[in-house]
Amino acid sequence: MKEILAVIRPKQVKRTKDVLEQLGFPAFSAVAVLGRGKQKGIAGEIACELPEGLESTPGSSKYVPKRMVSLIVPDEDADLVVKAILKVNQTKQYGDGKVFVCPIDNVVRIRTDEEGEAAIK
Amino acid sequence: MKEILAVIRPKQVKRTKDVLEQLGFPAFSAVAVLGRGKQKGIAGEIACELPEGLESTPGSSKYVPKRMVSLIVPDEDADLVVKAILKVNQTKQYGDGKVFVCPIDNVVRIRTDEEGEAAIK
Amino acid sequence: MKEILAVIRPKQVKRTKDVLEQLGFPAFSAVAVLGRGKQKGIAGEIACELPEGLESTPGSSKYVPKRMVSLIVPDEDADLVVKAILKVNQTKQYGDGKVFVCPIDNVVRIRTDEEGEAAIK
Repeated sequence: MKEILAVIRPKQVKRTKDVLEQLGFPAFSAVAVLGRGKQKGIAGEIACELPEGLESTPGSSKYVPKRMVSLIVPDEDADLVVKAILKVNQTKQYGDGKVFVCPIDNVVRIRTDEEGEAAIK
Repeated sequence: MKEILAVIRPKQVKRTKDVLEQLGFPAFSAVAVLGRGKQKGIAGEIACELPEGLESTPGSSKYVPKRMVSLIVPDEDADLVVKAILKVNQTKQYGDGKVFVCPIDNVVRIRTDEEGEAAIK
Repeated sequence: MKEILAVIRPKQVKRTKDVLEQLGFPAFSAVAVLGRGKQKGIAGEIACELPEGLESTPGSSKYVPKRMVSLIVPDEDADLVVKAILKVNQTKQYGDGKVFVCPIDNVVRIRTDEEGEAAIK
């Protein structure tokens, strides 16, 4: 199994979620993160209120609010899911985000004790 | 070493934490996440205030607030820790959550430079 | 590739970020987490407002607000990045935090479709 972890623009979460659901991958969690990529802050994106230690300082890179969505898929579906996330999120502008593919040893559904691929179906 | 990552109900965090501490696994971090599993929103669970891009829309899945707790354990303790988390969190109702087991190459305790299992004892 | 994930004190994020940028590793994301290590709560660190399920209770461990910073580096740079994080964050006091090194199968830059090391340069 693989974890597919995408750091994307907040406004793209809903469409990403809808497409993944239509492809048969309904379960994922999402958290707010602060990304800082090559673009080093983009005019037009509103900075969120930053907790201590994450403030922007003059002359240094700015944090850009992003959403991190994550889902676990069987190995053979990883490529499809990555390509679907690219399709939905690619504007070719800086700040489109990144997709990470990470190895996962096991998943257990707490309600049923199901393990492995049975736990993500 | 393995990272054991559990996405569970907010009200179960304290008991999960207490049991893991009694088993000798005191260190872990916890963050708020928004899960969306098969249940697609459960009446009775209160939705938290959602950041942009994570709002629920009529007819689509709802996000359910969850807590993600994470701890790093030696390989040989992974099974015990997973089973303890299952025991504490299994209500057999939708929304019990999931446990993920992920490979970890190394851990370093910053204070002492200790690496590997020495860093998690 | 490796993900280097550091859980550090909030006030150390800026210096960590600056040093990593000077070493040529500008991109990372940061989130607020609640750590609970051996120190079990340290006087002088202010507890943040805790979401449900994460409150401290009398006699039990306290959560300590931390920041989690994460970056992806080529395998051959992992050791340098870990050592730089240690250098910046080591006060030799409890609560310095931990660094985790995790395997990553692939990274894709959404804007350009670049994969692997090309996606993190």
